[in-house]
Amino acid sequence: MERDPGGPVRSGRNGFRQLLRRQIARQQAGPFCNPFDQSGVRWHPPWCGQTMRMAIYPGSFDPLTNGHLDVIQRAAKLFDQVVVAVALNEGKKPLFSKDERVRLVADAIQDMGNVEVDAFDGLLVEYVDKREGQAIVRGLRAVSDFEFEFQLALMNRKLNERVETIFMMPKETYTFLSSRLVKEIARLGGDVSAFVPPHVQVALARKLREV
Amino acid sequence: MERDPGGPVRSGRNGFRQLLRRQIARQQAGPFCNPFDQSGVRWHPPWCGQTMRMAIYPGSFDPLTNGHLDVIQRAAKLFDQVVVAVALNEGKKPLFSKDERVRLVADAIQDMGNVEVDAFDGLLVEYVDKREGQAIVRGLRAVSDFEFEFQLALMNRKLNERVETIFMMPKETYTFLSSRLVKEIARLGGDVSAFVPPHVQVALARKLREV
Amino acid sequence: MERDPGGPVRSGRNGFRQLLRRQIARQQAGPFCNPFDQSGVRWHPPWCGQTMRMAIYPGSFDPLTNGHLDVIQRAAKLFDQVVVAVALNEGKKPLFSKDERVRLVADAIQDMGNVEVDAFDGLLVEYVDKREGQAIVRGLRAVSDFEFEFQLALMNRKLNERVETIFMMPKETYTFLSSRLVKEIARLGGDVSAFVPPHVQVALARKLREV
Amino acid sequence: MERDPGGPVRSGRNGFRQLLRRQIARQQAGPFCNPFDQSGVRWHPPWCGQTMRMAIYPGSFDPLTNGHLDVIQRAAKLFDQVVVAVALNEGKKPLFSKDERVRLVADAIQDMGNVEVDAFDGLLVEYVDKREGQAIVRGLRAVSDFEFEFQLALMNRKLNERVETIFMMPKETYTFLSSRLVKEIARLGGDVSAFVPPHVQVALARKLREV
Amino acid sequence: MERDPGGPVRSGRNGFRQLLRRQIARQQAGPFCNPFDQSGVRWHPPWCGQTMRMAIYPGSFDPLTNGHLDVIQRAAKLFDQVVVAVALNEGKKPLFSKDERVRLVADAIQDMGNVEVDAFDGLLVEYVDKREGQAIVRGLRAVSDFEFEFQLALMNRKLNERVETIFMMPKETYTFLSSRLVKEIARLGGDVSAFVPPHVQVALARKLREV
Amino acid sequence: MERDPGGPVRSGRNGFRQLLRRQIARQQAGPFCNPFDQSGVRWHPPWCGQTMRMAIYPGSFDPLTNGHLDVIQRAAKLFDQVVVAVALNEGKKPLFSKDERVRLVADAIQDMGNVEVDAFDGLLVEYVDKREGQAIVRGLRAVSDFEFEFQLALMNRKLNERVETIFMMPKETYTFLSSRLVKEIARLGGDVSAFVPPHVQVALARKLREV
Repeated sequence: MERDPGGPVRSGRNGFRQLLRRQIARQQAGPFCNPFDQSGVRWHPPWCGQTMRMAIYPGSFDPLTNGHLDVIQRAAKLFDQVVVAVALNEGKKPLFSKDERVRLVADAIQDMGNVEVDAFDGLLVEYVDKREGQAIVRGLRAVSDFEFEFQLALMNRKLNERVETIFMMPKETYTFLSSRLVKEIARLGGDVSAFVPPHVQVALARKLREV
Repeated sequence: MERDPGGPVRSGRNGFRQLLRRQIARQQAGPFCNPFDQSGVRWHPPWCGQTMRMAIYPGSFDPLTNGHLDVIQRAAKLFDQVVVAVALNEGKKPLFSKDERVRLVADAIQDMGNVEVDAFDGLLVEYVDKREGQAIVRGLRAVSDFEFEFQLALMNRKLNERVETIFMMPKETYTFLSSRLVKEIARLGGDVSAFVPPHVQVALARKLREV
Repeated sequence: MERDPGGPVRSGRNGFRQLLRRQIARQQAGPFCNPFDQSGVRWHPPWCGQTMRMAIYPGSFDPLTNGHLDVIQRAAKLFDQVVVAVALNEGKKPLFSKDERVRLVADAIQDMGNVEVDAFDGLLVEYVDKREGQAIVRGLRAVSDFEFEFQLALMNRKLNERVETIFMMPKETYTFLSSRLVKEIARLGGDVSAFVPPHVQVALARKLREV
Repeated sequence: MERDPGGPVRSGRNGFRQLLRRQIARQQAGPFCNPFDQSGVRWHPPWCGQTMRMAIYPGSFDPLTNGHLDVIQRAAKLFDQVVVAVALNEGKKPLFSKDERVRLVADAIQDMGNVEVDAFDGLLVEYVDKREGQAIVRGLRAVSDFEFEFQLALMNRKLNERVETIFMMPKETYTFLSSRLVKEIARLGGDVSAFVPPHVQVALARKLREV
Repeated sequence: MERDPGGPVRSGRNGFRQLLRRQIARQQAGPFCNPFDQSGVRWHPPWCGQTMRMAIYPGSFDPLTNGHLDVIQRAAKLFDQVVVAVALNEGKKPLFSKDERVRLVADAIQDMGNVEVDAFDGLLVEYVDKREGQAIVRGLRAVSDFEFEFQLALMNRKLNERVETIFMMPKETYTFLSSRLVKEIARLGGDVSAFVPPHVQVALARKLREV
Repeated sequence: MERDPGGPVRSGRNGFRQLLRRQIARQQAGPFCNPFDQSGVRWHPPWCGQTMRMAIYPGSFDPLTNGHLDVIQRAAKLFDQVVVAVALNEGKKPLFSKDERVRLVADAIQDMGNVEVDAFDGLLVEYVDKREGQAIVRGLRAVSDFEFEFQLALMNRKLNERVETIFMMPKETYTFLSSRLVKEIARLGGDVSAFVPPHVQVALARKLREV
């Protein structure tokens, strides 16, 4: 299974140049980007097209729950950049406005260096294309979820073959969580502190007093 | 959310040095974007921290099908390195020996620069740990699949919280494919050329004559 | 595993006292309540905390169907008291008013000694708490049902760890039944006499003439 | 819905007799057993036919897991008596003998006053009948589980209309647990301390050394 | 298993009469209609009650998709006559009017000799009865589909025992297709040419400009 | 939607000839076979290629259950000929031999004029082809069934695009039935008279005494 790096490589600055040259030669020769390990040093050539990988995590986030946050954190470990993409979804009459939903996400991710939030309107695959994302991330909970997500993912693939959808599992204690249920519980006066971050809880309470 | 590209960058060797300097400056300034470990060793866009991401794609591969190959190709676009990990699975009495199964995979992936094949015995999470993989990749087909995969993934997470499982969808034309069905059809004299690569078809025919 | 009743017990009034004393002694000695059988008479000490068990069967009941009735009868055999709890559900714009739905249930359960009907607003778990119920009963029909019920049950458990949800199966001939389908069939002029009790059928016909 | 307790009842021994007499009178008058609450004391007349309710929790328990224990504890809160019924299941070639499986359960439930363990051979419904149980308890985990459990429950109902099957949800952290997976992990040298009680872990280790 | 045609049969007109006579004799003798093969010619007596079999394919068809068309073509090979039955469904506020939906179907099936389109209001089983159809045809896509379809089919059977529902599988590339998703994609400006026939695409574009 | 039969048709022998001629003319003109109704008499031209439709109902039938019989009867109403095809399935080690299984089916269908039983070895699609069947019939019970059946059906379609698989629903009281469960109950001494025809019950009892 070993990948011959093409002979010994000197250490230090010259070794680095040597490595670069070799990689460039390979890159020009073959169809793929060949990363390799050298004396314990893993090397992934920066000019490989696959270097910077971005995942788009789309949703209504009306509002953000701890389940969403869990998926975001998991995705942030696998991708160089994660974009939480708030779908406008005017048709569904969200409780929070687009800007409110974006702000609630922004507050929650401010300490995650490779996560950002954005909003989009229109087709998801076109947004992913515009952002030059490689993957759509979706959290899976239960079977009915799975079916619908599968259908969406196949549809998106038909619309843009380049974009891959991957599914991640939230922590099993968030299996039951959904924005819809959280809103319903908050409306009925229940305590949602176990389901959403504190600032979302505050925003929910304020919003429900308004309505 | 915008990431300031820091002005135009000259092409050529000087441009490269300029990029390095800029990246290092960013690295020192902020918590994120494309950092690297120095003399510690991991080196992604050589200067980034999350450097080399490896996905393990485990299975029996008894034998490799076109559905497996499809998942491998999709994973290879999202990860720096994909390891196809053939599970020993002596208990299941596989048709092909471990070595045969590894060889059939090896023949199929020889042109994919960032994919390798390996075999493992024992717990999957321990193997992933040993390989320093970040993710387990699993292909999803149908609901019953989904349930079992979900259960396995949660179990693996319990055994090693660090390892993430992600699910990918094979092409919908491979929805029906499974190694078990392929073997059964081959046994009954059916044509499996649409379901496995040519060299697997040949190996299947030879093996079934032996048995 | 045998539970020694502590020697022969005389029949008649004195035997009864003897049993009581023995049970009290046991009760004080051990952490649990020890019921026992004596000469064909089952005896469950009334001072055991678990004696009176109440199950809450919540739903919209818009309107009550034979499937609901079937579940009620099954639950009434397992619990000392069953409360059919009609959820207000103003958001769903029910066909029948809260009072009408309660009355339709009341008419159907009048001969069941340990079943009562009630209405509630707000969180189910708070209602169960207020009523000091031990269990929420839900009828299961199909997979999609199962998923949603599971999610609800986990949510309710998060909100109140003390309350258990149990699932019961209606008779298989009611597998297809739902209030929604019954209303749709009635609206289209179909015969619903096989799906609801006669008084519900009458109420449906009257209500649909009004609307 | 209120149940009139028939006026104030004296406290002390005479109050007790008074209660008894009232209850007997009610009992003779109506078709059902009417429990009532009196000044904070819940009273369920012991001569009511429904008093002593026994649930049978059948399974292979090869071996007992924390998921099983969780279901047992939940059932013990809802029933007067819970019988953990170890099925012989010779056909499935269990890892532990019937006696070993019974002993592992017995050790785990010794502090639960209203739980016992037993073994049975033959039809489950006949065993339930012999024990005069009212309900079969089954734990539900996932969809595939649900389907099979549903099928079994309907079959059992066909064989004995009197016996009810109820489904309970284990804690969501045990969603992934199964005896089969636990045995596989132990066989591969994994740590199962999070999945089974300590004495089962010890027994598993010893058994796997033997085999 | 062979069905003796009763000796050689002459060819030509007389042979035809002979066949007729024989068949009539059989018909009168036995409870069923006995079709037979004679010298390569398959003969199914036209006076057999089961001769003309009609399948009803009901739906909203708002609008017709390639998935619908695929099911129609498959059903047309199995039945003598297929009626695509557009349900009025005013409650669901369809995008296209009943007449528009019928016309879009009519344009798509004009070259299929044994397929026609019709619209119906009221109960499906009553429509099937009026048309003297033998079967309701439904396309299956995913699990959630399956559950709902099963429920509907059982309900319809309760309402009219005579009518059978059969399920057919569309091509797997249409697994993801639904009228709802097509409309959503078209609304967001996506390209739906892979999902619907050209004339439906034109109609969708025109309709969405109007709205 | 009406299909003009081409003007009034005389009754009697000449009318019959006239009809024949018209039909032949249409047949030659168009791509399809146009059946029609005339004065209450349904006429399906025997020379239409689609006339004689045969469905294959494959399975292990180890042994035949009332659920199988229910599907057979439903299929027999929709197809001209139904072939119950007993799969050899030596690998599964059936309880009854191939010949026994065929005989048990034969005894059950002897009064159904358009149903026959056969056995096959090898690929199902090849058998269907050899018999010139148009459709494979499968009974659906539950979700797990559905998934597997779907997979099989897609596989069969890949192997032979011409053959259609249709799914039918057994009576809901047979939802729980499977040959496996029936055998298990019989083995444990349970009464299976509600699940299989009397002659199968006898055969089961005899067979289990032998084993």
